[in-house]
Amino acid sequence: MTQNTSVLLAKRPVGNPKPSDFSLRRENLPTLSEGQALLKNHFISLDAGFRNWLDESAGDDVLPAMALGEPVMGLVMGEVIETRHAGYQVGDWLMARIAWQEYSVADDSQFIVKIDPDEPYPMNYYLGVLGDTGLSAYFGMLDIGKPKTGETVLVSAAAGAVGSIAGQIAQIHGARAVGIVGSDEKAERVVAELGYAGAVNHRGDVSAQLAALCPNGVDVYFDNVGGPILEVVLDHLAVGARIALCGAVATYGNPGSGPGNLFQLVTKEALMRGFFAHTQVDRYPEARSQLAQWIDTDKLNAPEYMLSGIESVGPAFSDLFAGRNFGKTIVKLG
Amino acid sequence: MTQNTSVLLAKRPVGNPKPSDFSLRRENLPTLSEGQALLKNHFISLDAGFRNWLDESAGDDVLPAMALGEPVMGLVMGEVIETRHAGYQVGDWLMARIAWQEYSVADDSQFIVKIDPDEPYPMNYYLGVLGDTGLSAYFGMLDIGKPKTGETVLVSAAAGAVGSIAGQIAQIHGARAVGIVGSDEKAERVVAELGYAGAVNHRGDVSAQLAALCPNGVDVYFDNVGGPILEVVLDHLAVGARIALCGAVATYGNPGSGPGNLFQLVTKEALMRGFFAHTQVDRYPEARSQLAQWIDTDKLNAPEYMLSGIESVGPAFSDLFAGRNFGKTIVKLG
Repeated sequence: MTQNTSVLLAKRPVGNPKPSDFSLRRENLPTLSEGQALLKNHFISLDAGFRNWLDESAGDDVLPAMALGEPVMGLVMGEVIETRHAGYQVGDWLMARIAWQEYSVADDSQFIVKIDPDEPYPMNYYLGVLGDTGLSAYFGMLDIGKPKTGETVLVSAAAGAVGSIAGQIAQIHGARAVGIVGSDEKAERVVAELGYAGAVNHRGDVSAQLAALCPNGVDVYFDNVGGPILEVVLDHLAVGARIALCGAVATYGNPGSGPGNLFQLVTKEALMRGFFAHTQVDRYPEARSQLAQWIDTDKLNAPEYMLSGIESVGPAFSDLFAGRNFGKTIVKLG
Repeated sequence: MTQNTSVLLAKRPVGNPKPSDFSLRRENLPTLSEGQALLKNHFISLDAGFRNWLDESAGDDVLPAMALGEPVMGLVMGEVIETRHAGYQVGDWLMARIAWQEYSVADDSQFIVKIDPDEPYPMNYYLGVLGDTGLSAYFGMLDIGKPKTGETVLVSAAAGAVGSIAGQIAQIHGARAVGIVGSDEKAERVVAELGYAGAVNHRGDVSAQLAALCPNGVDVYFDNVGGPILEVVLDHLAVGARIALCGAVATYGNPGSGPGNLFQLVTKEALMRGFFAHTQVDRYPEARSQLAQWIDTDKLNAPEYMLSGIESVGPAFSDLFAGRNFGKTIVKLG
């Protein structure tokens, strides 16, 4: 009988997740009930935002806190190999917010998007540049950032899955993109490979680097990290600035530990807005079509950090926080 | 010869301003230079937001930090009694960002709006409900808050000059207004006199009172105070909430002393935006005309806390921070 391997939450991470926070469990495939479909997963998407729900106290409207000793929830792409769900046929490709497993049971309680297997791009693109991360970049940059020609657009985690796309979308709209990254090597790579005009290494003096790279202030800040860097950026806003707070920002701080200078939103008549891509599923086709056109015309580069095998999932997730990825992190399953 | 009395900044306030932070100086009227007009001031507007510039380090794009031993800057309404400015004739009424004085010299370096002396409302209304505070309520509530029928609109400093108008504008648009005030007496008054559905006394448990008064969450937060109350409100937002940060919010906190839960803007896909009324002078006529129509049709009550004499200015300003005012605070000069 086919065995299924799941990645479990072995320990709740303290600070950044590490490979030993996860373990593997092998078990038989479940028998389907009415209304369920069985997916053979091909790709697992690793997204920093899911870190939030690894904390015991972290349940919210999107997901409950993940259970210790149970499979970790994430975004997965798989193919239906058995079905008792009227909406899903064998051979359908589904992207689902479901557990890190080789095989998963999907039902209507989950967030599921059907992907046409005849799509002209590699299926893994539908977890990255044409998936939630690319769509987050698209919606956040265009709906909130609204970059204009000549403006300066700052992107944190600029080499990450969302940031790598967000910075390029800003450039496509005529803006000058500046990144915030965690190493000098990444600073060089976002300039060379993603067209950023320059990048701040957040391990140095962020304010001084921002003053040098954004002398006329920051018109748009696409924020993937929040925290103390946001506070520094608030002091460098241009009048009328727009700040898009992407899902990954959703980290919980202690009361009274956030930016003490929110008044800068008043003095700069600036806007800050949080968003998720997954609440705008009806706009996915339009957004995907635009992103695809930019890929086809070589305006958009979609870097990926690809690992393989279910045993790589915990390490790949940990790599996100150690800053080892460049672009979208995906684990390919056999 | 006519003497002029000015209100000076005698001491930089520590925390809330008090009457002894201010002193009076009498001196002769100045001789006008070309490009200047002399105003006899009739009304002085007291606005909490001006507190910011009393700190030594507080200069910004709007005003420099105020100088110790010099007249305090504020919003003043006066009549031109002598002129060497081609744009201003004797008899013109001007509202200007100028010093707390019986007589002031106005020139093009200042923010000045001409008021038609034939306007049908008391001239003091042009500092209050038809002035910057009423216009702040109007622009902030309608441009950012956009209240809809049935929504819950929360207003901090709900009995203040801006808040008293903002809460009523929300009600005119079909929303349910809830106030935040500093005493049980004010809580009763905002309900009885301004139509609020209820009010939170911020000296009690704000979160528990909000949960009781806003069981479906806060759709719009019109924030006049910022600080720790904002952090509590962030935990009570409804999905799609809008937060208007009014000028008075512009208080400086220590780094890392602000709300630690800005991630709520993401989880609630909420918007926060700062604004000033004075950057939208071209829209003043439209906004004034709408506010005036609401006054005429008894939809809008414009409470005032009126004192008289230049010696009342320092105490009247201090009263704002002691919570003694209800509605717009104005000092009438002889």
